[in-house]
Amino acid sequence: MTLQYALELVGTFVFAISGALAIREREHDLFGAGFTGFITAIGGGTLRDILLDSYPLVWIGDIYFLYAILLGVLAAFIFPNFLSQLRKTFFLFDTLGIGFFTVLGVEKALSLGVRPEIAAIMGMFSAVMGGVIRDTLTNEIPILFRKEIYASACLAGAILYLLLNYLGLDRDLNLLISMSMVISIRLVAVKYKLSLPRLD
Amino acid sequence: MTLQYALELVGTFVFAISGALAIREREHDLFGAGFTGFITAIGGGTLRDILLDSYPLVWIGDIYFLYAILLGVLAAFIFPNFLSQLRKTFFLFDTLGIGFFTVLGVEKALSLGVRPEIAAIMGMFSAVMGGVIRDTLTNEIPILFRKEIYASACLAGAILYLLLNYLGLDRDLNLLISMSMVISIRLVAVKYKLSLPRLD
Amino acid sequence: MTLQYALELVGTFVFAISGALAIREREHDLFGAGFTGFITAIGGGTLRDILLDSYPLVWIGDIYFLYAILLGVLAAFIFPNFLSQLRKTFFLFDTLGIGFFTVLGVEKALSLGVRPEIAAIMGMFSAVMGGVIRDTLTNEIPILFRKEIYASACLAGAILYLLLNYLGLDRDLNLLISMSMVISIRLVAVKYKLSLPRLD
Repeated sequence: MTLQYALELVGTFVFAISGALAIREREHDLFGAGFTGFITAIGGGTLRDILLDSYPLVWIGDIYFLYAILLGVLAAFIFPNFLSQLRKTFFLFDTLGIGFFTVLGVEKALSLGVRPEIAAIMGMFSAVMGGVIRDTLTNEIPILFRKEIYASACLAGAILYLLLNYLGLDRDLNLLISMSMVISIRLVAVKYKLSLPRLD
Repeated sequence: MTLQYALELVGTFVFAISGALAIREREHDLFGAGFTGFITAIGGGTLRDILLDSYPLVWIGDIYFLYAILLGVLAAFIFPNFLSQLRKTFFLFDTLGIGFFTVLGVEKALSLGVRPEIAAIMGMFSAVMGGVIRDTLTNEIPILFRKEIYASACLAGAILYLLLNYLGLDRDLNLLISMSMVISIRLVAVKYKLSLPRLD
Repeated sequence: MTLQYALELVGTFVFAISGALAIREREHDLFGAGFTGFITAIGGGTLRDILLDSYPLVWIGDIYFLYAILLGVLAAFIFPNFLSQLRKTFFLFDTLGIGFFTVLGVEKALSLGVRPEIAAIMGMFSAVMGGVIRDTLTNEIPILFRKEIYASACLAGAILYLLLNYLGLDRDLNLLISMSMVISIRLVAVKYKLSLPRLD
């Protein structure tokens, strides 16, 4: 529990950094960068909780999430060059992050009593919608529509979690396996530039 | 009641197809197409229910809506060319759909106790906001701002429904008349390329 | 109290006008202009109240806000040239408006029992997110990312209000001082073309 909570704060911190750095090349000032860092970090979980009517929202009920975001944005302000050079490290963090938040999102949705099909969607939303909202606000084509297999990796991991959960697998083991699924699909897809077929 | 429920599922199915096909020309993969089909189908009703604090959301409380969407997306995957050739048929379906969902949206809002002015807005939102959210996410100018008389036809139908309802007209008859109003305005506007005047 | 309520209605009216006129140069018809006027006027407060689970939404619970918006949109329809020539006056009104709605947003959030850090964010959201949503829907880069010091002025005013409130200052006096803070920062920033540093 304490480990999971710590990981949630670290994940929020990392999402805030990557959100703030994402708009670096453009005409945005410090405030704009902080704002996008904030939106990236809270967007997915906020959308999930509004759709499921689960209040108070995580970052409103527990102020430490806001502090994790402020720290992330501050880090992006103070060390932008250093952090940008860590691009590969961040890609790894982001990949770990979407795996982690997917599974937590599925668990939260299940705990609120929805059906597994809905929980799978909520898990994916938790992981990717922060980036989608950020991209929409900044007039970019959302990552979801651009990148090699991204949100679909989350959906696959969410479905695996639900399946193993249904089969009665131990929760911690399931969490580890399903996260690894998301992460592996994403890493392999990026390495070999795999993408899903297009409609035509 | 059973007829209405069946029509709601069919309407959701059709909206999902048209949403999935809407992005066909662009760089989106199968997942992106499915995602936009989903957003198009649920967006309007979801926004209405969040604004009115009506939970659980329709597609979360009743899993058949999700299945109707999955079927629609699947159909768009398997028969994209066939369905695209049905463009005229789809235009008709879409027009029937916005008429139908406008009136249902008005009724739902009224049943939640809001004033008629608010119910009219909610009826229009139910019908058109799915497409607006889809267009916003995919970086298009929303249909609302492009097309000949579209959302305004929904608003006119919503207001007619409220008027006839106030005058005590039988509900089924009113539903039919008000839907026809939306549909006629839209068809006539498209046929004769009518549009509202612009500000200048 | 009555003065505050009147000011809220006037602020809503002015935001609706500026929203409707904001898209004038583009291909939008009257309906599109009315729609953006509506979104601009209600967007910020609606987002705040959804995030804080505060229902009914202000404009749904009190119909006079909708009438204020309709009047604003109507005014924009009838006197577009006259009102556009008042650009400077509107800039002033908009500046007064964001100052006023920032402080009211902070107060509402506090009254709902959230921590001051969250209340500051909600104050800023109340003032600026209507414009952000409008710009996102119409495919513009949101004002937040473009303008000289805008949302950051609201955040500064919100923090000042919270500080003075914590120090026990009289509420009306605090409201006046904090609003003036937002307004002064904004006016000085525009006059001298000040902006926050960028990340680089």
